Amino acid sequence: MSGTFVGIDVGGTNVKIGLFDSDLKLISKTSITTEAEMGPDVVIDNMAKTVEKLLTEANLSLSDITGIGIGTPGPAKYSEGIIIKSTNMPKFINVPICKMLNEKLGAPVVFDNDANVACWGEFAVGAGKGVKDMVFFTLGTGIGGGVVSNGELVHGCDENGAELGHMIIHPDGRQCNCGQRGCVEAYASADSTARRATEAIEGGAESSLKKVLDKKGKITSKDIYQHLASGDKLAKEITDGTAKALAITCINMLHTTEPKRIVFAGGMIAAGDVLLNRIKEYFDEHIWTLKKEYVEICFATLGEDAGIIGAAALAQHTKQQGKLK
Amino acid sequence: MSGTFVGIDVGGTNVKIGLFDSDLKLISKTSITTEAEMGPDVVIDNMAKTVEKLLTEANLSLSDITGIGIGTPGPAKYSEGIIIKSTNMPKFINVPICKMLNEKLGAPVVFDNDANVACWGEFAVGAGKGVKDMVFFTLGTGIGGGVVSNGELVHGCDENGAELGHMIIHPDGRQCNCGQRGCVEAYASADSTARRATEAIEGGAESSLKKVLDKKGKITSKDIYQHLASGDKLAKEITDGTAKALAITCINMLHTTEPKRIVFAGGMIAAGDVLLNRIKEYFDEHIWTLKKEYVEICFATLGEDAGIIGAAALAQHTKQQGKLK
Repeated sequence: MSGTFVGIDVGGTNVKIGLFDSDLKLISKTSITTEAEMGPDVVIDNMAKTVEKLLTEANLSLSDITGIGIGTPGPAKYSEGIIIKSTNMPKFINVPICKMLNEKLGAPVVFDNDANVACWGEFAVGAGKGVKDMVFFTLGTGIGGGVVSNGELVHGCDENGAELGHMIIHPDGRQCNCGQRGCVEAYASADSTARRATEAIEGGAESSLKKVLDKKGKITSKDIYQHLASGDKLAKEITDGTAKALAITCINMLHTTEPKRIVFAGGMIAAGDVLLNRIKEYFDEHIWTLKKEYVEICFATLGEDAGIIGAAALAQHTKQQGKLK
Repeated sequence: MSGTFVGIDVGGTNVKIGLFDSDLKLISKTSITTEAEMGPDVVIDNMAKTVEKLLTEANLSLSDITGIGIGTPGPAKYSEGIIIKSTNMPKFINVPICKMLNEKLGAPVVFDNDANVACWGEFAVGAGKGVKDMVFFTLGTGIGGGVVSNGELVHGCDENGAELGHMIIHPDGRQCNCGQRGCVEAYASADSTARRATEAIEGGAESSLKKVLDKKGKITSKDIYQHLASGDKLAKEITDGTAKALAITCINMLHTTEPKRIVFAGGMIAAGDVLLNRIKEYFDEHIWTLKKEYVEICFATLGEDAGIIGAAALAQHTKQQGKLK
């Protein structure tokens, strides 16, 4: 069955691997521990062996693979197939991951950063399906981003574009881990949302979250949404702050690449409609009045599989463009 | 001489028209009054006659034209060749300008908004030459924008992208004409720069500009730069505010489409290095420390001709892509 695509999503803890048919339907998937401390040779060998195992179980062989897609955190020279370095995988320095995988599996490999790959998954078969212009945010520890403009991912001159979490919405505002001040990530990531609540309580704000902080020593964004559901006023204020920061960023993206659809992914979308609706309300409240803008703001639909689907879909897309080699 | 391109830059007051050879070298150019009040038939007929006149003077004929590019203010359905409406040309409602010009001149017409056309001019032969990713700002009454990503203009889903002046850098900040608050245009356009100075003086700030305000009843951005040169403290503060707003917007664009070069155009660049250097200083001060970013920030080089050059260059580019029809 020629036309099989492999999607690989590399994280610091786990590597997810999926086999997909030519319609990008999942054939099978699995997850292995990354074992980053073993170094790139072992890690990449494990990936290759796992791909072979999945193929065998599906009565397929290496020759059935048309293309392989892989996503990792940056920074990397994606177009050259090289991981430059990795916070979560310190032994990965200048690793030619595409060449190494290609030597083991025989098929061409396409490589992009994890947020772009997940963005492409949603674009190809998920919440972004059917549009040509999409913007993607992952709300996790930080805020990752992806931009599809006229049907193609935006990479930028140094393949470092679409770092949307680091758009500044409050000059000289909250300190961000990146060294800037006032990034949307410093307000609206899961970590920053929790931190703003913690700071408010430590500053004397009344909240049912205080008991959580006293008991567990910390607050998570999940705690905030639980207490929001039970009517806590501070939880509402903090959620509003997150939603407003995201809405402003949506407006800024509308005035930049003008997406038809803006898709939010990541752990924090578990908050559900209470978050999504507030983002939409703030968007409507703050957007210009020159022209009615019909951007659709929604949540991602692929969940944890976005990375493997996106990687496989990117391999397929690159193949279709005649650029997979 | 087949391979002649025509560039037309339509403004509310004047229409500029240029003839270019196949290397985009200017053959000749002229400017006519728009006479928008006469309505689209007359205006477009005048444009066509002027093109014919320029051709005749250059010993060329209609059959020498390979393509025509035209830029107008929005909103329009550019890809369909239709001006929807125009603030400066109220009689232009749903005007199929490309079809009308094509019928008169016989050559295919490509159409885009004035900021995109000027951006493309700088990209093709001006300050952006040699890069694939560029961002363009015009600092005039408002702030216009253009984005070139991977060698193509970014239009967005509804051909309304790259309205970079309306990126919000201060949520709930200064009122912008567009209906939003806190747009970069509300701080850093020529008009907003002058308005901030006026407000400061009316609020009691000491400045040598006060005499200008008292005498002329208003301050322009040009006054500010003149008084800055002679050491006025308020003029420096106001210029710093403009530079900082622009620097933050540059940072946000770097994290979006990651341009190699950011080009400023428009009347306000007459301020010179005193403005450009402050933008660069604020950029260096506020950009992240995760990674050294080598974006080049510079001024446009084509001046008033950017529109006609860009329109002709866009026609040439569209031709080269096989999409000019």
